[in-house]
Amino acid sequence: MKKSITGDEAEDAFSGFPVVLATVSGEKDNIITLAMCHVFSFKPPYLGVGIAPRRFSHGLFKASKDFAVNIPTKEMLKAVEICGTRSGRKVDKFEASGLTREKGEKVSAPLIAECPVNIECVKVQEVEAGDHTWFVGEIVAARADPSYDRNGDMLLYWGDYRTIGERVKVVEERK
Amino acid sequence: MKKSITGDEAEDAFSGFPVVLATVSGEKDNIITLAMCHVFSFKPPYLGVGIAPRRFSHGLFKASKDFAVNIPTKEMLKAVEICGTRSGRKVDKFEASGLTREKGEKVSAPLIAECPVNIECVKVQEVEAGDHTWFVGEIVAARADPSYDRNGDMLLYWGDYRTIGERVKVVEERK
Repeated sequence: MKKSITGDEAEDAFSGFPVVLATVSGEKDNIITLAMCHVFSFKPPYLGVGIAPRRFSHGLFKASKDFAVNIPTKEMLKAVEICGTRSGRKVDKFEASGLTREKGEKVSAPLIAECPVNIECVKVQEVEAGDHTWFVGEIVAARADPSYDRNGDMLLYWGDYRTIGERVKVVEERK
Repeated sequence: MKKSITGDEAEDAFSGFPVVLATVSGEKDNIITLAMCHVFSFKPPYLGVGIAPRRFSHGLFKASKDFAVNIPTKEMLKAVEICGTRSGRKVDKFEASGLTREKGEKVSAPLIAECPVNIECVKVQEVEAGDHTWFVGEIVAARADPSYDRNGDMLLYWGDYRTIGERVKVVEERK
């Protein structure tokens, strides 16, 4: 028998969204850890990242024409946590996390050398949705480490950090 | 050494987003399997679902004031596949999948009895982003089966269907 739950509890029924390190340039280059990130369109390829206005990164994303989405691995969890819990107002996230800044090919946003995937985006839309602004960007350049294994390396987050589990296949019913 | 990849390949670097069965009422009630779904806002609680205009559900979502997001379990994979690959133009998805229709409390959209979590949303925004329309809805009612285990039950999809993996913890460096 199902029971009524609140909107908050309904959102907590999800178990994990991919974790990314979003980067942006500005008065101070910054890194922000986000599970509020999704593919928005395939052709053209758009990614969107959702950031709350109280976050230091929000003003930087508003002011910048571009940003980058860097995919970390589970081995980078400590840096991921630092970039998710400290504020760019108080610390330099590259210094605090020990991550290495790399120059992008087509964007002003810094890339993160340790991340096996770096995706450069030019902002095409800003969507105000409740308590978040979604910055949607078109992918204009990207690079990946050929040894990157998306199923083995990637982190999910929604309350806990988790890995990707096993592949599930449809078991056909015998008739 | 990283290599350049295309925008498509960059989007394929993600390994899995939560799978939902979105439902909507209309000329014909419909179910659509989506990994294009994300939490958009916490307070107020908003969910967004991305649907391509060529899909039968697109017109139904455009016309309807509400929709529902139903979270299936990995045991429901066969029905999930049917609702993701057949078109509502040709079949009745409830009939084709064997899933059971349930009445929502506050929305016209049907709920799916077999899904342990049913989330009722009233549409608040439509966002055109490249080749998808994102329908953003405020959660107005929700219910869950108390035995639902988000980490054990939930499905991810991005090319393959997968489960949620292990919890990862930060290992503090000893100084």
